[in-house]
Amino acid sequence: MQERQLQERRLALEPSIHGMISNSTRAYTDIEAVKSNLDHIWLIICGAMVMFMQAGFALVESGCCRAKNVQNILLKNLTDVCIGTIGWWISGWAIAYGGPMNADGFLDNGFMGTEQWFGMGFVNYAGDGKFEPTTGMLNWFFQWAFCSAASTIVSGGVAERVNFGGYCLYSFAMTAFVYPVIVAWTWGYGWLASLNSVGFMDFAGSGVVHMTGGVGALMGAIIAGPRAGRFQYPDEFAPHSLPLITMGTFILWFGWYGFNCGSALGMNDAAQGFMAAQVAMNTTIAAATGGIVVFLLRLGMTRGKYDIGGFCNGILAGLVSITAPCGNVECGSAFGIAIMGGLIYQGASSLLKLMKVDDPIDAFAVHGACGAWGVLAAALFDWGEGFDFHHGWSGFGCVSDDSGCLAGANGEGLAANLLEIVMITIWSGFWTALIFLPLRFSGFLRVSDADQDAGLDAVKHSPSKAYSIEINTFASTTGVALDKVHPMTANEGSPAPPDA
Amino acid sequence: MQERQLQERRLALEPSIHGMISNSTRAYTDIEAVKSNLDHIWLIICGAMVMFMQAGFALVESGCCRAKNVQNILLKNLTDVCIGTIGWWISGWAIAYGGPMNADGFLDNGFMGTEQWFGMGFVNYAGDGKFEPTTGMLNWFFQWAFCSAASTIVSGGVAERVNFGGYCLYSFAMTAFVYPVIVAWTWGYGWLASLNSVGFMDFAGSGVVHMTGGVGALMGAIIAGPRAGRFQYPDEFAPHSLPLITMGTFILWFGWYGFNCGSALGMNDAAQGFMAAQVAMNTTIAAATGGIVVFLLRLGMTRGKYDIGGFCNGILAGLVSITAPCGNVECGSAFGIAIMGGLIYQGASSLLKLMKVDDPIDAFAVHGACGAWGVLAAALFDWGEGFDFHHGWSGFGCVSDDSGCLAGANGEGLAANLLEIVMITIWSGFWTALIFLPLRFSGFLRVSDADQDAGLDAVKHSPSKAYSIEINTFASTTGVALDKVHPMTANEGSPAPPDA
Amino acid sequence: MQERQLQERRLALEPSIHGMISNSTRAYTDIEAVKSNLDHIWLIICGAMVMFMQAGFALVESGCCRAKNVQNILLKNLTDVCIGTIGWWISGWAIAYGGPMNADGFLDNGFMGTEQWFGMGFVNYAGDGKFEPTTGMLNWFFQWAFCSAASTIVSGGVAERVNFGGYCLYSFAMTAFVYPVIVAWTWGYGWLASLNSVGFMDFAGSGVVHMTGGVGALMGAIIAGPRAGRFQYPDEFAPHSLPLITMGTFILWFGWYGFNCGSALGMNDAAQGFMAAQVAMNTTIAAATGGIVVFLLRLGMTRGKYDIGGFCNGILAGLVSITAPCGNVECGSAFGIAIMGGLIYQGASSLLKLMKVDDPIDAFAVHGACGAWGVLAAALFDWGEGFDFHHGWSGFGCVSDDSGCLAGANGEGLAANLLEIVMITIWSGFWTALIFLPLRFSGFLRVSDADQDAGLDAVKHSPSKAYSIEINTFASTTGVALDKVHPMTANEGSPAPPDA
Repeated sequence: MQERQLQERRLALEPSIHGMISNSTRAYTDIEAVKSNLDHIWLIICGAMVMFMQAGFALVESGCCRAKNVQNILLKNLTDVCIGTIGWWISGWAIAYGGPMNADGFLDNGFMGTEQWFGMGFVNYAGDGKFEPTTGMLNWFFQWAFCSAASTIVSGGVAERVNFGGYCLYSFAMTAFVYPVIVAWTWGYGWLASLNSVGFMDFAGSGVVHMTGGVGALMGAIIAGPRAGRFQYPDEFAPHSLPLITMGTFILWFGWYGFNCGSALGMNDAAQGFMAAQVAMNTTIAAATGGIVVFLLRLGMTRGKYDIGGFCNGILAGLVSITAPCGNVECGSAFGIAIMGGLIYQGASSLLKLMKVDDPIDAFAVHGACGAWGVLAAALFDWGEGFDFHHGWSGFGCVSDDSGCLAGANGEGLAANLLEIVMITIWSGFWTALIFLPLRFSGFLRVSDADQDAGLDAVKHSPSKAYSIEINTFASTTGVALDKVHPMTANEGSPAPPDA
Repeated sequence: MQERQLQERRLALEPSIHGMISNSTRAYTDIEAVKSNLDHIWLIICGAMVMFMQAGFALVESGCCRAKNVQNILLKNLTDVCIGTIGWWISGWAIAYGGPMNADGFLDNGFMGTEQWFGMGFVNYAGDGKFEPTTGMLNWFFQWAFCSAASTIVSGGVAERVNFGGYCLYSFAMTAFVYPVIVAWTWGYGWLASLNSVGFMDFAGSGVVHMTGGVGALMGAIIAGPRAGRFQYPDEFAPHSLPLITMGTFILWFGWYGFNCGSALGMNDAAQGFMAAQVAMNTTIAAATGGIVVFLLRLGMTRGKYDIGGFCNGILAGLVSITAPCGNVECGSAFGIAIMGGLIYQGASSLLKLMKVDDPIDAFAVHGACGAWGVLAAALFDWGEGFDFHHGWSGFGCVSDDSGCLAGANGEGLAANLLEIVMITIWSGFWTALIFLPLRFSGFLRVSDADQDAGLDAVKHSPSKAYSIEINTFASTTGVALDKVHPMTANEGSPAPPDA
Repeated sequence: MQERQLQERRLALEPSIHGMISNSTRAYTDIEAVKSNLDHIWLIICGAMVMFMQAGFALVESGCCRAKNVQNILLKNLTDVCIGTIGWWISGWAIAYGGPMNADGFLDNGFMGTEQWFGMGFVNYAGDGKFEPTTGMLNWFFQWAFCSAASTIVSGGVAERVNFGGYCLYSFAMTAFVYPVIVAWTWGYGWLASLNSVGFMDFAGSGVVHMTGGVGALMGAIIAGPRAGRFQYPDEFAPHSLPLITMGTFILWFGWYGFNCGSALGMNDAAQGFMAAQVAMNTTIAAATGGIVVFLLRLGMTRGKYDIGGFCNGILAGLVSITAPCGNVECGSAFGIAIMGGLIYQGASSLLKLMKVDDPIDAFAVHGACGAWGVLAAALFDWGEGFDFHHGWSGFGCVSDDSGCLAGANGEGLAANLLEIVMITIWSGFWTALIFLPLRFSGFLRVSDADQDAGLDAVKHSPSKAYSIEINTFASTTGVALDKVHPMTANEGSPAPPDA
């Protein structure tokens, strides 16, 4: 009923007006068109759900901060997604997926793509002055959402004490180069994917996305140093809003179905549908299990207090842990993986506190530690190759393969996944250090302690407070009653104020 | 562009590596694969939307509570969905849909399923060491979201005074047994479905989901008794955040399209698409109408005050009322059903207050009373059998059937729906009483009045407050200026603090 | 597994019970059914996402208001969507899309539709007592969400000082008549669409939806006059909650994928899929770019302060600007369009402040000014007709067409889009004035200054405050300790209070 349809209707009536439909350079059969559209529906909606996770990150992170830094952390989240979009557009996609590919179907130089900068090359010239579309735009959009997520994870680790300018630089580097190179090695058919006969298994990115962000967060937290007073007065650092944290967690959980199920990367053959359902079920079980495990751990650690922030982080720990293996393990394994994920989260969180590393939202414990565990679990719990429709991976099958752990493909899969963990740690850690260390040493990274004490919102932002909940009248705030300052607009609905 | 696709690409190049694709035990034709994927896209996305309703419930319920109990109600919402997942995984699905079925297509023992515990049996052995998938995982996921919703409804009715331990027990029983048995009787082809020649009509669960939860909430509210001081000082019990309530209502409305439209249960034949559109339109009209009706009622009851909490509950009342009939009534009927739904909600709400039953968020009035009305309305307003593509039910057709009310199928449909209402009331009420009454009598159900007065967050939670909005400096809270406690980290961005 | 499927299963067993399936008056082939369902999946989910934008509007608008008017602005948002639904149901759809159409495929009278009032006529009589469905309900639902959005935009412009009764009248007129007529002219194949050989181009409604609302907001803001004290004490008008604003912006961004991508209006041919992907990519780039531009402008205007409210409005400005051209421009153009959009937003916002027009949330600057720019940009940046699958429009192609701007179709497209801008301004401005001016002159439009000073929530709402965050005990608020007022329910979990 809009313009395009109007033109189509008119074309049916007067086919001579112009050839928009008829000059299609490629004839799609009905079934090809349908399959193409199944992919488009699936990836656009799942991509939008992943984008919506940005709202979840923003709420969880701002809820965990103190009220005086709420605007500042929201600013970092807004920046991540916006600068990240520009970075992904300029060079991120090109490096990650731009190609060219060699005759064996792998990335030609093995290290990074070198074509399709600035989103160019998504329309093929088809001769005779005509062009035809590719799936480039579709994949650009879906993968953009993942790139933004990786970047945003870091913002939590350096919250409440890092200068905005330095953070912008980091955010751009992350989305335009650091993350895309890791993608090129792995999902982009680079050297890690071509290493052996079974490849690696990181279905939706426990490693590629979450570890990349989580390791960056850890390195950032170490280099930035703890927030002023963090370990002297820990009680002053309570989260400022549990409703925001809980709300954000539910949004993240919701968006994770786009993240994990969408990673079937299409819906054109039946296997993808069945796999997406398996992924949804595993994701659900892992989220719930992780939450319960961490809640119980905290219950013990606090001698019976309920810690819903811990509950929420446990849910996220379960989700991160299942993100790599969600497509090749069965539901009982998902349960076990999430139990381990919850324990690993709490262990990493406690260890960092012990070492006086200040990661305000446990970004490393959730995304880094559980991300590495997820990659490992994808190898250890593989369902095995007897299962059709991709339910298993067949790289090996410690759990279900009769031949025992490491037997499948001579353990090549496990080795590849271990290598993925090592390489992501090195690459993400190295670049984070390379950007943040010079900033720290030159005095540009950290906000002064005095400004931290006043709060970044008061010092740097306009307005100076994130919340103005109290209810004021003009007389109470200006010392002048309204009828004195504003006699001209006093009008209907009440008598004009007396001239007293 | 991820691992699976990499393998597919490699398979095309070297088909001898392994037979992941080729050893598929069942050959799907193109059109079969497409139809299967339409179902998968539809139910995964709609299921995720229903899951997202948990965020809506959490916000509506926490917004309705007092600030001192916000963490506690959020905890109950988190618990419902997480414990509920485990309950549904262990036994819920098996009881509701596990089968076995008899030759007539009904549940064999009529009462509850007895197979597929722990999510097992969703992959069929296909001989020769191979397995093939079923739609089991898909349906497990979609129906899981409904189960969690039923459980969460109860948390509002017992908010602000029930011990968490007792609530956990209830939540597990609800999702692992009580709700699944009702599903087995109805959507699971049990005795209620096989009772007569036309079955019953509860399209998306006004009865199965909402009444089950609403009756549990009422029974829980009665057994737990009113919150301390509730009827002595009603003014002290105002909702603590209207923005949370409104936000939650919009989220619930959004998720309800997954709940109602998704209940077409697939998208493989054209009738399901047209039905889902009819459902979307009816759902929309009912939500809006219910909201306006209750808003106007409250306007009268408060002599002209605007009550947006009432507006929101009216929207929910309209939505619950249309949940059963959304698939077999026309839009004018949806309008009428929602008007009645708004009146019934307000009547039930006022009646409970009169009887001094303390249901903090009107869980019974919204979900129980309007749920029962919805089941009744599905019978009374049926569009009739002249309408193809399932727009009508044909059990009877009081509105559009010339032969008049109760004539169709000799009134068997109306009788079945009435029986559904009665049986859900008995079953849900009985089990709720069986769990809560012993807890109450043994002193484990209710939090002490003194603890209620202090607030559950302060007594039981860590941190002790849901909100810390005020802005403090170290000097103001610790009595020691920051430069005294933390001289070592004073660094870039400002001069080092003087040693005064 | 629900009723309908039960009946289908039974039908397979006993086809004689009733003919619900078999009496279908139209035989759908498999591929027709699949295509129909692709359309249904796409438009129902995208429509729900557009509906969810109401939550985003509510949060952005309430966050921008002062705490004392939060309930009142939430009420207006609830009202817009609920009254808007009734308006759209009664006459909105009929006027916009009801027809009848003439033999050339255009709206018969060119001005407005005259059939299908009250959602009637969506089921065709197919003879022999049988009926068959149309896509009417599907399109009613999808277009309803757009209508509600147009109406809601106005609420921000008149926030914090307009009487609710007058606003209700306006909201109904907008959704039942004013907006639908504009749709009839344009997307409804009315006179503007039939004006020349290439039609106009407003893909997802920068003009039809956003300008209509934005112009209404401007006219409303002018007629209602500024809030009491607005230009005397500007510091008193800071937004009360930046987290709500940011959260709302992310929700709007998420919903915009439904708004823009969904405007492909179906998914039955391959071109629609590719177009939706192009739209998603353009929408993403424009949102990010607009946000960065306005953030940088504000950074300069405030001498280095960070303004995240401005960042959020910049994102919205980018989104509104790309809404018309998202389907016929390439991604580099989207970047340029959003840069201009950001500048235009800030210019309009500053100009209105200079002219002392009080538009509390910059509704005109975002939706009106950028809406007009978007319509213009759709003409100026057209990708040209060499691109198949509708990537370009071919009305003209200033950017990519060798023949230069205005050359294509003799500039008819640019002329049509300019005419659209003019006509929407006149039509929306005229009706807004016609409704609001008499109300203003008769004293019914504006809330008294004294009531504004106290806050609309305190004067008009129940409860009187949107937030009750402080934590109270009974003793602190009632002067009577709880154990005095409520001795009967003191029970388990703690010893009975001593009688001191």
